[in-house]
Amino acid sequence: MPEQVKILLNEDEMPRQWYNIQADLPKPCPPPVDKDGNPIGPDTLAPVFPMNLIEQEVSQERWIDIPEPVLDVLMQWRPSPLYRARKLEKALGTPARIYYKNEGVSPPGSHKPNTAVAQAYYNKEFGIKRLTTETGAGQWGSALAYGCKQMGLECKVYMVRISFDQKPFRKIMMQTWGANCVASPSTETQAGRAILKEYPDTPGSLGIAISEAIEAAVTGKDSRYSLGSVLNHVLMHQTVIGLEAKKQFEKVGDYPDVVIGCAGGGSNFAGISFPFICDKIAGKEIKVVAVEPSACPTLTRAPYAYDSGDVAMMTPLLPMHSLGHTFVPPPIHAGGLRYHGMAPLVSHCLKLGLIEAGALHQLECYEAALMFAYSEGFIPAPETSHAIAQVVREARLAKEEGRERVILFNWSGHGLMDLTGYQAYFDGKLEDYALPEEQMMRSLASMEGLPKPPSA
Amino acid sequence: MPEQVKILLNEDEMPRQWYNIQADLPKPCPPPVDKDGNPIGPDTLAPVFPMNLIEQEVSQERWIDIPEPVLDVLMQWRPSPLYRARKLEKALGTPARIYYKNEGVSPPGSHKPNTAVAQAYYNKEFGIKRLTTETGAGQWGSALAYGCKQMGLECKVYMVRISFDQKPFRKIMMQTWGANCVASPSTETQAGRAILKEYPDTPGSLGIAISEAIEAAVTGKDSRYSLGSVLNHVLMHQTVIGLEAKKQFEKVGDYPDVVIGCAGGGSNFAGISFPFICDKIAGKEIKVVAVEPSACPTLTRAPYAYDSGDVAMMTPLLPMHSLGHTFVPPPIHAGGLRYHGMAPLVSHCLKLGLIEAGALHQLECYEAALMFAYSEGFIPAPETSHAIAQVVREARLAKEEGRERVILFNWSGHGLMDLTGYQAYFDGKLEDYALPEEQMMRSLASMEGLPKPPSA
Repeated sequence: MPEQVKILLNEDEMPRQWYNIQADLPKPCPPPVDKDGNPIGPDTLAPVFPMNLIEQEVSQERWIDIPEPVLDVLMQWRPSPLYRARKLEKALGTPARIYYKNEGVSPPGSHKPNTAVAQAYYNKEFGIKRLTTETGAGQWGSALAYGCKQMGLECKVYMVRISFDQKPFRKIMMQTWGANCVASPSTETQAGRAILKEYPDTPGSLGIAISEAIEAAVTGKDSRYSLGSVLNHVLMHQTVIGLEAKKQFEKVGDYPDVVIGCAGGGSNFAGISFPFICDKIAGKEIKVVAVEPSACPTLTRAPYAYDSGDVAMMTPLLPMHSLGHTFVPPPIHAGGLRYHGMAPLVSHCLKLGLIEAGALHQLECYEAALMFAYSEGFIPAPETSHAIAQVVREARLAKEEGRERVILFNWSGHGLMDLTGYQAYFDGKLEDYALPEEQMMRSLASMEGLPKPPSA
Repeated sequence: MPEQVKILLNEDEMPRQWYNIQADLPKPCPPPVDKDGNPIGPDTLAPVFPMNLIEQEVSQERWIDIPEPVLDVLMQWRPSPLYRARKLEKALGTPARIYYKNEGVSPPGSHKPNTAVAQAYYNKEFGIKRLTTETGAGQWGSALAYGCKQMGLECKVYMVRISFDQKPFRKIMMQTWGANCVASPSTETQAGRAILKEYPDTPGSLGIAISEAIEAAVTGKDSRYSLGSVLNHVLMHQTVIGLEAKKQFEKVGDYPDVVIGCAGGGSNFAGISFPFICDKIAGKEIKVVAVEPSACPTLTRAPYAYDSGDVAMMTPLLPMHSLGHTFVPPPIHAGGLRYHGMAPLVSHCLKLGLIEAGALHQLECYEAALMFAYSEGFIPAPETSHAIAQVVREARLAKEEGRERVILFNWSGHGLMDLTGYQAYFDGKLEDYALPEEQMMRSLASMEGLPKPPSA
């Protein structure tokens, strides 16, 4: 009989609580502030988010119960399998033991619905009838469409026009789950109309789409806005990933030396790593690595600062590593890793020395993705390939050093909707790209005059 | 705690043998014959298939061991989960208990790799270096690409030109697993060149692609041909689906009254149903239903006859329900259900009264697919939607009759690569379509003069 590759949990072993890392941090994360540097109160956020999620955002409780209706939906694909990557290990000839959580088994194919379902539930509990959001390539939009359909909410998605036109599949996926998806900028909001008047042919941007989605939430009836990453409660909803992984490691009597996740806004990285950082704070020796693209080097090159979450500065200022809210990301294929900022809690963990960060070029990532597809079989999303490339580095190092390292990473999603990126790679059309210093200085300048976090 | 939805098996509960229904049939299935009606011997097939698979094709052994290297690859996603469709049951308000096997969890997203991996293994064992095949929409081609990569074989796929041009995603998927995929007709074969000379702008057809793939296998060095359905050994490789389902039913103390699968060539239907038909032959009362599209009504309207598997008549004559080898299928979106013939073993089971057959229109199928996506979350392939539509009918009947029916069906694959079909449905561009009598009579005429099976 071949050796075990999938470590499964039964549904009754599903975590019943989310882990809130704020309870364990040696120093608290600075609060969001307004432009004068004053901490903002819950009332400021109330038009945008429901009060139950705002309470969760600031909660310092270590454990927060997952409501039963949320569990009921998550159980359609959770607990997700923990894989021992025996075929990848063999391909690498490494003495390292490599494990990955397969989050591609969810209906939308990524980790995103872990929070989409929870957010839809809390909004419904609060009496909200409709959620609005923005999406770039469509990963988050499709997850929220699914979450809203499961909870019986309407869903409105503003999708960056160039993706809306060029990547129709995710749009159809959203429609299939009953969401209303329009190209952004649209004529449905003031923000959209203003942009269209000035730039009728604009391809759109995530910043514009966020502005439209927030405006639609604030002005719409029984509407609120939903964000797929960055915020504390969003990261917390993802901790089911790491909590399950810990139980799965217990089953096989193993434990990771290294935990790796790719990091765009930070939610998939936090999801796999925070439950292990909990052990690290308590004294365990673990290396935790967030991997970002060299084209969008938030953690590795951007300063820790207060910055807005969107280009129109409609959000409060968040304490985070940020390239500046006017940052225009280069057209790399990992659409989920192109955000200008990094989640405050992830940024804070880096400052506290709890995690490390690395930046990788996309060709190395595609090469690693192909090695994964050849060996393990599953085709990874371009975002996920960043984590895989870091795993390959760690596994090769273990081989050189002849060390038995145990490596865990989050396989955050499949790449079946992102195959055009692979095509571009095969055709030799992709280039390595590091953010030019000059471009970074320009976008960093957009933060001038903003208040600074106490620990910056 | 929410009620259980996924019934899982551990890897050590994976079936170690395939079930060969030929051992249990009350009357044996007639053999393949040549144009004079003489049964063909193994030597006739030897240039096309390796001898170890030819032996499997004619074996009358009830159980055939699954080789360990095949198990090792299947275990990347098998045993697949058996779902209790509680959310669909609720949406239907039915007293029926609905279960489905989720075959969408495989790397290519369907049941197809169950046989692709096995065929690649046996060919490799026989010393073959390269497999050739044809593919329409790409479901089978991508599965064989994956299987060949896992076993270290080259893979050559002839893809119908219109799909090659219009559905690039499956083609990229094949490339990602290292296969060489060309548009058919190609200039690489005599068959292709002959067609191109006469019809330079032809969109291609499955029949032409089969002819090219067989020619390439027969004339190529260390090459053989691989078929994704229809043949006995292919159907047998799929029986892991039903065998797992039986174990999973045991775990929850249930057993199906009705077993449903969609049927194109017949392999996914056979995979779920043959292990249950084994019980039916032994006396159990089970209704087994094969569902096909009204546009390609092989089992429900076509005669039982000897016919060729391809338009150029390169294959032996197989005893099957067939619309005639010159049948040109209408452009319905369920690309996998457009084959002119039905597997000899499935056709034989219908003759023996072991199964029933139904034909459904595509609008009813898309409606059922959406109900499934709304409730269970997963987006089904257009082929799979035919099984779902039949399930909906059975569940509604159970509701009317107030009966506790237990329904099992095979969720043969996800529809993430087939979203354009959903788009066409949303846009009102799809029509119901039943094969016109006149068109059927024309293609049936292509079987005139061929020998008849003894039981026809």
